[in-house]
Amino acid sequence: MKQGSRGEAEFDLDLVRKAQAIEWLLLDVDGVLTDGHLFFSGRGEMFKAFHVRDGLAIRLAREAGLQVGLLSGRRSAALVRRATELSLDAQLLGREDKERALRSFLAQNRLRPARVAYVGDDLQDLPAIALCGLTFAPADAVPEVRAAVDRVVNAPGGHGAVREVIEWLLRARGSWESLTSRWTGSSSRR
Amino acid sequence: MKQGSRGEAEFDLDLVRKAQAIEWLLLDVDGVLTDGHLFFSGRGEMFKAFHVRDGLAIRLAREAGLQVGLLSGRRSAALVRRATELSLDAQLLGREDKERALRSFLAQNRLRPARVAYVGDDLQDLPAIALCGLTFAPADAVPEVRAAVDRVVNAPGGHGAVREVIEWLLRARGSWESLTSRWTGSSSRR
Amino acid sequence: MKQGSRGEAEFDLDLVRKAQAIEWLLLDVDGVLTDGHLFFSGRGEMFKAFHVRDGLAIRLAREAGLQVGLLSGRRSAALVRRATELSLDAQLLGREDKERALRSFLAQNRLRPARVAYVGDDLQDLPAIALCGLTFAPADAVPEVRAAVDRVVNAPGGHGAVREVIEWLLRARGSWESLTSRWTGSSSRR
Amino acid sequence: MKQGSRGEAEFDLDLVRKAQAIEWLLLDVDGVLTDGHLFFSGRGEMFKAFHVRDGLAIRLAREAGLQVGLLSGRRSAALVRRATELSLDAQLLGREDKERALRSFLAQNRLRPARVAYVGDDLQDLPAIALCGLTFAPADAVPEVRAAVDRVVNAPGGHGAVREVIEWLLRARGSWESLTSRWTGSSSRR
Repeated sequence: MKQGSRGEAEFDLDLVRKAQAIEWLLLDVDGVLTDGHLFFSGRGEMFKAFHVRDGLAIRLAREAGLQVGLLSGRRSAALVRRATELSLDAQLLGREDKERALRSFLAQNRLRPARVAYVGDDLQDLPAIALCGLTFAPADAVPEVRAAVDRVVNAPGGHGAVREVIEWLLRARGSWESLTSRWTGSSSRR
Repeated sequence: MKQGSRGEAEFDLDLVRKAQAIEWLLLDVDGVLTDGHLFFSGRGEMFKAFHVRDGLAIRLAREAGLQVGLLSGRRSAALVRRATELSLDAQLLGREDKERALRSFLAQNRLRPARVAYVGDDLQDLPAIALCGLTFAPADAVPEVRAAVDRVVNAPGGHGAVREVIEWLLRARGSWESLTSRWTGSSSRR
Repeated sequence: MKQGSRGEAEFDLDLVRKAQAIEWLLLDVDGVLTDGHLFFSGRGEMFKAFHVRDGLAIRLAREAGLQVGLLSGRRSAALVRRATELSLDAQLLGREDKERALRSFLAQNRLRPARVAYVGDDLQDLPAIALCGLTFAPADAVPEVRAAVDRVVNAPGGHGAVREVIEWLLRARGSWESLTSRWTGSSSRR
Repeated sequence: MKQGSRGEAEFDLDLVRKAQAIEWLLLDVDGVLTDGHLFFSGRGEMFKAFHVRDGLAIRLAREAGLQVGLLSGRRSAALVRRATELSLDAQLLGREDKERALRSFLAQNRLRPARVAYVGDDLQDLPAIALCGLTFAPADAVPEVRAAVDRVVNAPGGHGAVREVIEWLLRARGSWESLTSRWTGSSSRR
C-alpha cells in the first residue's frame, strides 16, 4: 500500500502497468461513494449523500472508455437513482456475498480480474480486493483494507475519494490531461 | 477509564475477564449510534443518521452469540426501522429514566448486571454505566461519562464508535478472528 | 470576551454576579442551535438539525427556574416543532429586526435587560448582545460577535454550544450539581 | 492566487481596483454554496444544504447594488427555491457548458467580463475563471482552481465561503462598514 500525498501522485511502474490493463472500475458504495452514513426514516433508507466531484470523475472515466459499476451489500432507491443519473454500466446491489457477486460478474463478462480496478473500505471488501487487478481505499477505510490495497487516497469516503482514484487512474493511463483540456486549456487563454 | 489507541487495542486481564462474562450489549442511541443530531421537520423527528460500519459489527456480535439491544430516552420511527433491519434483540425506547428501564430489563430477563455491557455518552447514561459489568463511551462523550466507563473508544458517536466497541469486545472474547475470516482469509489467497 | 477551556470553566466574580441575575435565556437559532446549514427542498426549508445535548440542557435550565426562548430572523415548521417538544417559553421567530423584537419582548414582560442572557453568532445578533445582561457565542461565531460577548464556549453551533452555555450558567448559579445529581449521584454507588 | 488569513483580509491595490469595477457576482453552486454533497432519494436530488451566513451576505451584496446570480451545471427544485428566497438576479442552471452559458449571459446583458466576479471550485469552472474580472475559490477547491483564482478564502464550500467572498468584496469597495453599521453600531452603545 502506498499513501498518496495531495498534489503529487506517485506513479510507480508496476502500478502504471496495472492501470493500463484496466477495463472496469467497480466501486463499493457505503463508505466509498458516501461517508458511511445511512439516513433512515420510518420507511427505511431515505436518502444517500453523494459527492458532486465523484460524479464528474465517473463521467470522465466513462468518456475515457472505462466501464464503471457498483458492488454493494445494500440496495436502496436513492442509490439506483444516482447510478442511473451517472449512466453506470453495472449495478451489483444487495449482494452481501461480494466475492460470489464479483466472480459471477467476471464470468458473465468473460473478464479477467486483472482488467478490474476496485475501491472498497471495509472487511467485506477484502475478497474483492484480493481478486482484482488494481485496488484502492479511501483515507478512512479500516486498517485491514488500507493494508491490503495498492493505493490509499487522501480523501475520505463521500468526500471525493472516488474522484482521486479516477484522477490517479486516468493520469496513469495518460488520458487525464486531454480529457480535462476542455476546461484547463482555457486558463492559458486568459 | 483507558483511552484506546487506534490499531493497538489494549486488553488488560481484568477487562478481558469482564468481556468474557458478557451476554448482552445495550446501546444508547443519540450520541452513540448517531452523532447526536436530531433532524426535525414540521412533523417531528424526520430521520436519523446511522453508520454502516456499526451495522456490520452488530451483525457480527449477534453471530457471536451476544444479544444486542437499545436503551434510549427518545423514540422515533426511524430508530425502530433501523433496529428492525438489524434484528435487534431488545428495544427499550422512550425511557427517560434509563436506570429504572435497565433494572426492570435485568429483572425480566433474570440477568445479573455483570452480564451486560453498555455504551453511553451523556449524563443520563451514568446510572446504567454504574450498574453494568463492562462499559464504553465514544470519543466525544461528556467528561463525566468518559471518566466513568471502562473504555473510551477512538471514534466519536455515529462515526463507528459501536464498531470499535464490538471489535474490542469480540477480540477480548477471542472470536473476532474466526468471525471475520470469511473476508480476511481471502487476502492470503491473492 | 473570555475563551473557555474545556473541563475547567472560568468563573470570575463579575460574570457570576451577572449569571445570578438572569431570569430568561434567549437563543438565536441558525448557527447556535444548528451549525448554520439550511436544508432546502423544492418547497423551502425542509428540516433543521438540532443537537440532543442542547435539548437536555434546555430541560435542566427550565427545571432550574429559567425561562428559555428563541429569537430568530427565520421561521420554519421544523423549528416550531422542536421548540414545542422542548416546551420553550417564547418563540420570537421570523424577526429580521432582532433589536426591535427584543425591546418589545422586554417591554411586554416588564423585564430589565440585565435579567436576560443571550446566545448569538452573527452580525444581526450584535444589538441583542449589546443590550442583554450576559452574552455568549459558539466557538465558530463571526469575529465581531466573539469580540462582543462575555463568553465564547468551546463547541461550535449545533454541536453542543448551548449545552456548554447552560452548564456554565447553572454552575455559576450553583444549581448544576444538584440538578444532575439524579445521574451523577449513581456513579458513587458503584 | 493569494491565500487569505482569517481576520486580516489582504487588499492589494490591483485587486481593489478590480473589485471596484464589479457589477455582477456569479456563483457556482455545488462545492461553493454547498459542501458538494448531493442528497439523493429514489426520486433524484431531494434537498441541498446551504449556509445561513452566505444568505445574509448575498442580501448585503444586493443592497450594495451588486447583482448576484448562479451558474451551475446542475438544476434542482431545492436550488430554485433557495434562489427565489434570496431574490437572485440570474439563475443559469443546468448549464453543463459553463463557458457558453457565461458568454451568452455576458452578451445578453451587454456586460464586459471585467464587470463580473466569479466563485468556483472545480475544473468546469476554469473557463469562467479565465474569463471573469475577479475570481475566488473556497478553501477546498481543487488545486487547479486554487491556482487560477485571484483569491482563495478560508472557509470551505457550504461553510461560509461565499460570505467571506462578499465581505472581502464589499470591504474592498468600501461599503461593508456602512452596510453593517445597523448592527455593529449598536455595540458601541452598550
